[in-house]
Amino acid sequence: MKHRVFYRGMAFGVFLFISTYSFAHAAEAGGALPSWNDGPAKRSIIEFVDRVAQSGSPDFVAPEKRIATFDNDGTLWSERPVYFQLLFAMDRVKDLAPEHPEWKTQQPFRAVLENDMKALAASGEKGLLELVMATHAGMTTKEFEQTVKNWLATAKHPRFKRPYTDLVYQPMLEVLAYLRANGFKTFIVSGGGIEFMRPWTERVYGIPPEQVIGSSIKTKFEMRNGRPALVRLPELNFIDDKAGKPVGINQHIGRRPIAALGNSDGDLQMLQWTAAGKGARYMLIVRHTDEEREWAYDRKSKIGRLDHALDEALKRGWTVVDMKKDWRVIYPFQIK
Amino acid sequence: MKHRVFYRGMAFGVFLFISTYSFAHAAEAGGALPSWNDGPAKRSIIEFVDRVAQSGSPDFVAPEKRIATFDNDGTLWSERPVYFQLLFAMDRVKDLAPEHPEWKTQQPFRAVLENDMKALAASGEKGLLELVMATHAGMTTKEFEQTVKNWLATAKHPRFKRPYTDLVYQPMLEVLAYLRANGFKTFIVSGGGIEFMRPWTERVYGIPPEQVIGSSIKTKFEMRNGRPALVRLPELNFIDDKAGKPVGINQHIGRRPIAALGNSDGDLQMLQWTAAGKGARYMLIVRHTDEEREWAYDRKSKIGRLDHALDEALKRGWTVVDMKKDWRVIYPFQIK
Repeated sequence: MKHRVFYRGMAFGVFLFISTYSFAHAAEAGGALPSWNDGPAKRSIIEFVDRVAQSGSPDFVAPEKRIATFDNDGTLWSERPVYFQLLFAMDRVKDLAPEHPEWKTQQPFRAVLENDMKALAASGEKGLLELVMATHAGMTTKEFEQTVKNWLATAKHPRFKRPYTDLVYQPMLEVLAYLRANGFKTFIVSGGGIEFMRPWTERVYGIPPEQVIGSSIKTKFEMRNGRPALVRLPELNFIDDKAGKPVGINQHIGRRPIAALGNSDGDLQMLQWTAAGKGARYMLIVRHTDEEREWAYDRKSKIGRLDHALDEALKRGWTVVDMKKDWRVIYPFQIK
Repeated sequence: MKHRVFYRGMAFGVFLFISTYSFAHAAEAGGALPSWNDGPAKRSIIEFVDRVAQSGSPDFVAPEKRIATFDNDGTLWSERPVYFQLLFAMDRVKDLAPEHPEWKTQQPFRAVLENDMKALAASGEKGLLELVMATHAGMTTKEFEQTVKNWLATAKHPRFKRPYTDLVYQPMLEVLAYLRANGFKTFIVSGGGIEFMRPWTERVYGIPPEQVIGSSIKTKFEMRNGRPALVRLPELNFIDDKAGKPVGINQHIGRRPIAALGNSDGDLQMLQWTAAGKGARYMLIVRHTDEEREWAYDRKSKIGRLDHALDEALKRGWTVVDMKKDWRVIYPFQIK
């Protein structure tokens, strides 16, 4: 009799242990995406995850194939007044100006030093490239990493007067965490610089450097004072934008994502590439509709233009997020 | 009384559950690396893993930083009579020859069709590149993947009369598994083609495509019959060998490995780059010393030459594996 009670207790102990875990898991699912208002966008995410991650589902996808790719600028963090990386480059030009007296008269540097955004825009892609090469090359990878960290620790966004990494979207942080809790591997696939993102994506998004894909300049291995170093060269290596995104995905990941999330025409090919695979697929576009809490722009915008990709999303029934309607809060610091 | 027994049973149940897990873990550690003979090489691996993975160790490394990079040819699988990828390219030339009557008189194709290895070697790097472009480009990534899979399913190694993927080193499979069981992320960093490896590395090594780094040709995103495709172009993108290895590691992983394992001068810079980081480091060179069970070659070899890297390994005290002495078996099919 005693034995039977003992074993019953033992079984209960094991049950207790297991059910605590199950309960924790269920709780997680129930409270998923708290910063999303109820609606078709939120529902579409949860439904997709259930379809691919629940064993027994006809659309079940093995965990190693649960690859989700996220654009960064305008999808995970804001991109106004201009891409934050451009603001970084401009601040660098100001820091380095004393060593470059010629910049006072030479475009696009003069435009930066005089805060003349119109002249800067007039310098076009060629001007931007010159800015990038002057500020992103000529140092080791380690030195550049430190420069990015220093900037993020001190620079403030002009409108919100906060560090740039505060301007990430709380609802998207929740999507990242929700996907990972359901066995997904989350990647960034951005037109921005790969080495500009890596110093902070793990801390801010939980995305380690090896899951960050972006544009890059060439680097060269060399010995400096008997120690190996990687030196950043003023030469483009890869532009991870538009038709470059599926190329970058293939180069880095080597398999097709089953989910892709973006916000602009620069993401169209990534979404098309993702959509064209077999089985369950998830494509999402963030639409900037909230002038009050963030910004409102789409078809006519120079930065983050959303035109063709919006047409395609509407035609194909991809999820279109309306920031104003769908997001309860925009930034983590707005959580009450 | 009954209650007390019940609770005691319950506690025992929880204990049973936990201790089963702990025991499983201990068993794993005790039986690690069974295909390695006892000796300094085997001990060095286990000691390093203990140093970085045991909590409380002064050299403890957080799991996300436990990055280990492995060369492939000659480190994870054999590379004789020549790199297996070259044998693949040669078989492809023979398959495609009917569509290319001009190859009968044109080097290096003629050499391949006549099995004239001397003439092929005489065509040099330029000839090899021509072979690669003629056999690795001009199709979609999906088509190429299928070609590799078909070849591996049918081709046999000339000496062992077995599929090439049977010629992987059992002791290194155990190192891969042992590192992963201790929280490491394992990567391949090979001079071989990235898309030649990815179709089989997950099945054979447990290394997913996103953890494979290699040489590559360019690809282009385009619409084919209204569907997106990535087309392989006859243009070099990146050579992941020698000084290219740290560059490839930085591009793909974005942080420095704490362990690197190779077998030739092509791995020297990867090992130097790994060794130059702070904290505990592990560098290993496989030395091919077993003519009977595998092959014996080092300083004078054209394929897999181990000369400068061996000097550096000996000078710096990196682990040098003597295949003949250190490995109980070479290939999985030799396990009794």
